[in-house]
Amino acid sequence: MGDVIATYQVYARPGSLEKKAEDIALGLTIGSWTALPLLEQKQLLKHKGRVTALQEFYDDEHPNRFGEVRCEISIAYPTYNFTFDIPAILTTVFGKLSLDGEVKLLNLEFDNEDLSRFPGPKFGIKNIRSKLNIQDRPLLMSIFKGIIGRDIHFLREQLRDQAMGGVDIVKDDEILFDVNISFEDRIIAGKEILDEVYEKTGKRTLYAVNLSGRTMDLVDKAKHASELGADALLFNVHTYGLDMLQTLAENNEVQLPIMAHPAYSGAYTSSNFYGVAPDLLLGNLTRLAGADFSLFPSPYGSVAMEKEKTLAIARQLTEENGLNQAFPVPSAGIHPGLVPLLYHDFGNDCIINAGGGVHGHPEGAAAGVRAFRQAIDHVIQQNTHRATKAQELEAALAKWGGTS
Amino acid sequence: MGDVIATYQVYARPGSLEKKAEDIALGLTIGSWTALPLLEQKQLLKHKGRVTALQEFYDDEHPNRFGEVRCEISIAYPTYNFTFDIPAILTTVFGKLSLDGEVKLLNLEFDNEDLSRFPGPKFGIKNIRSKLNIQDRPLLMSIFKGIIGRDIHFLREQLRDQAMGGVDIVKDDEILFDVNISFEDRIIAGKEILDEVYEKTGKRTLYAVNLSGRTMDLVDKAKHASELGADALLFNVHTYGLDMLQTLAENNEVQLPIMAHPAYSGAYTSSNFYGVAPDLLLGNLTRLAGADFSLFPSPYGSVAMEKEKTLAIARQLTEENGLNQAFPVPSAGIHPGLVPLLYHDFGNDCIINAGGGVHGHPEGAAAGVRAFRQAIDHVIQQNTHRATKAQELEAALAKWGGTS
Repeated sequence: MGDVIATYQVYARPGSLEKKAEDIALGLTIGSWTALPLLEQKQLLKHKGRVTALQEFYDDEHPNRFGEVRCEISIAYPTYNFTFDIPAILTTVFGKLSLDGEVKLLNLEFDNEDLSRFPGPKFGIKNIRSKLNIQDRPLLMSIFKGIIGRDIHFLREQLRDQAMGGVDIVKDDEILFDVNISFEDRIIAGKEILDEVYEKTGKRTLYAVNLSGRTMDLVDKAKHASELGADALLFNVHTYGLDMLQTLAENNEVQLPIMAHPAYSGAYTSSNFYGVAPDLLLGNLTRLAGADFSLFPSPYGSVAMEKEKTLAIARQLTEENGLNQAFPVPSAGIHPGLVPLLYHDFGNDCIINAGGGVHGHPEGAAAGVRAFRQAIDHVIQQNTHRATKAQELEAALAKWGGTS
Repeated sequence: MGDVIATYQVYARPGSLEKKAEDIALGLTIGSWTALPLLEQKQLLKHKGRVTALQEFYDDEHPNRFGEVRCEISIAYPTYNFTFDIPAILTTVFGKLSLDGEVKLLNLEFDNEDLSRFPGPKFGIKNIRSKLNIQDRPLLMSIFKGIIGRDIHFLREQLRDQAMGGVDIVKDDEILFDVNISFEDRIIAGKEILDEVYEKTGKRTLYAVNLSGRTMDLVDKAKHASELGADALLFNVHTYGLDMLQTLAENNEVQLPIMAHPAYSGAYTSSNFYGVAPDLLLGNLTRLAGADFSLFPSPYGSVAMEKEKTLAIARQLTEENGLNQAFPVPSAGIHPGLVPLLYHDFGNDCIINAGGGVHGHPEGAAAGVRAFRQAIDHVIQQNTHRATKAQELEAALAKWGGTS
């Protein structure tokens, strides 16, 4: 049994940090220490939280409203104290503490043995690339648009258009639930259309269907999707909790890659003073819990996240930790002109994901997909000095701008 | 089918609010409107989000860092668009939007028919009062202290001490998981001790045991607790999601009151600019999803919340809405000297909840409980002009101060 090391940003008056950190380490484990008899100290030592690092940032640009200094502290929590599940870990390291003033949870570190207790991505970047037989470029994903209130014919047409353009993955909108068109019907229609396109073009497109509904129905629905031959699941992780993602990832009858959507996560990642760091939530924990893809706002689009934060998310999703790698999916407001920037930031192992930037193409969604594929090819070719431009891409650049 | 009306705090430049609100209403429902052919507008009308209120606060004390004005907007989302579960509702009204700059979800309103689709508290204030046969005063709850790493004998002794003092409810620490002492053993030991105390004193104390572990095990564990004759469940709702609370509340084989702990909730309620309002999360939604008790930081203790916010939580837990009422439990750093303030703020229908303020009493936990019971009696008697003070209360006031 080892420790889970949690790193926090806190604010403290100069000189008070050590006591503050010690109070947290004790308060979230055995409660008190110096008042205990020696014998009890001996018995409880292996349960005691320990401060492992302290740092004060005197040159900080963001003092809080009390003029306190920004600090980072790390505390080791013995895994003896909890069952090894994400709810117990989060309750221990950030349960009560999340309510205790300006404190933000920045990271969680596990030793190698504990890391191996998480499932991680069942497929990961490598197996998803094999499934699609694409090794040497970022993947392209597009999203259904304006599908709320529409029927299955509308969905079929949109899916066909996107697939005919040569997109790698199409995902449901995260706000599409099983009302007008059932989960099962979407999977069946998706399979039919995408097989038909494959027959015509030889290009395989995957469809990520939104897994939604009541918690206790999710596993059965996911198994059923797997049986029906679905390609992948989209999942709004943060309205259910990370443990539910882990449950799906661990289930051997759910043989589908899982795409974690960041819906609702902004409620606790957006503040500079409170909540959870985006790279911890959408990077580290999302990967540990078993997502094969993690969506997050790109630094460029309509819903933007600071570049440094997005790079940190991508790093947590892909750096070596013994588990499969998950695909970073920088999203929202992406158009073909942004492809060179995304490629520069996130490299080959990322997914270019667009909705309006596909459907809003002057010549329609299929052309929108082709423009993106051309932009991707172009940026790869630029790297290999074989750059060419193409018609749909030129039209997209004329509309949205950009340097591809 | 009706609407769910979501109210948000946003920041906007003067004059830009109406467009901003309309963009949200469309973006989170059908996507676009004016560009649609009339026939399609007609078909999609019942799915369209509608702005129902706009308010700009020019005299606002909290402009954001861009100097934008604080505003409140309300948007009606047709329930046609989603399955009626909390994850779908939260994803619709605050999924993508939670990531889109300074926007805070303040409230959700449902029409009466939709309200009745939520379970609400299975027992509620009335039935919990009947269980304990106490009608005319706030209840008193105490918490185990320093229980991490200890064995069942330590737990039994602490429980006996607290119960002998005459406490109404004892709850597990939220960071006590099923490691050293199993869930089942705690329930069995609790029942034995509390029956024994009841034999001696005629006073019935309830024990709320922490329900924890993997999501898919919770229902079976809760049923088993019910079979074993447990009194109540403590549940760290926010590390699992509100739908799991609802699942437990709806299960007829789980015949136990549920106490919602706010662990981890501070991650999304603490910022003034982002996340979810505390009264929505810990009041409204916690009650709808079926908690019989909701804990939150009191305005006075070691982990404090602004008084206005705590009163709003209590209001949401108790105001008439057709569902049972849930007990407000203002918590953290409560000592007997705070009882008059808590009684003034929260009235008769609340729970006085203390850990250190019970165990830290100079004469021990039983005396600590008696001091609280005396403080409660005293404040009730003051209202009826029969005030008397008593020994343990005097000792507590001498240690912690206060006016009881």
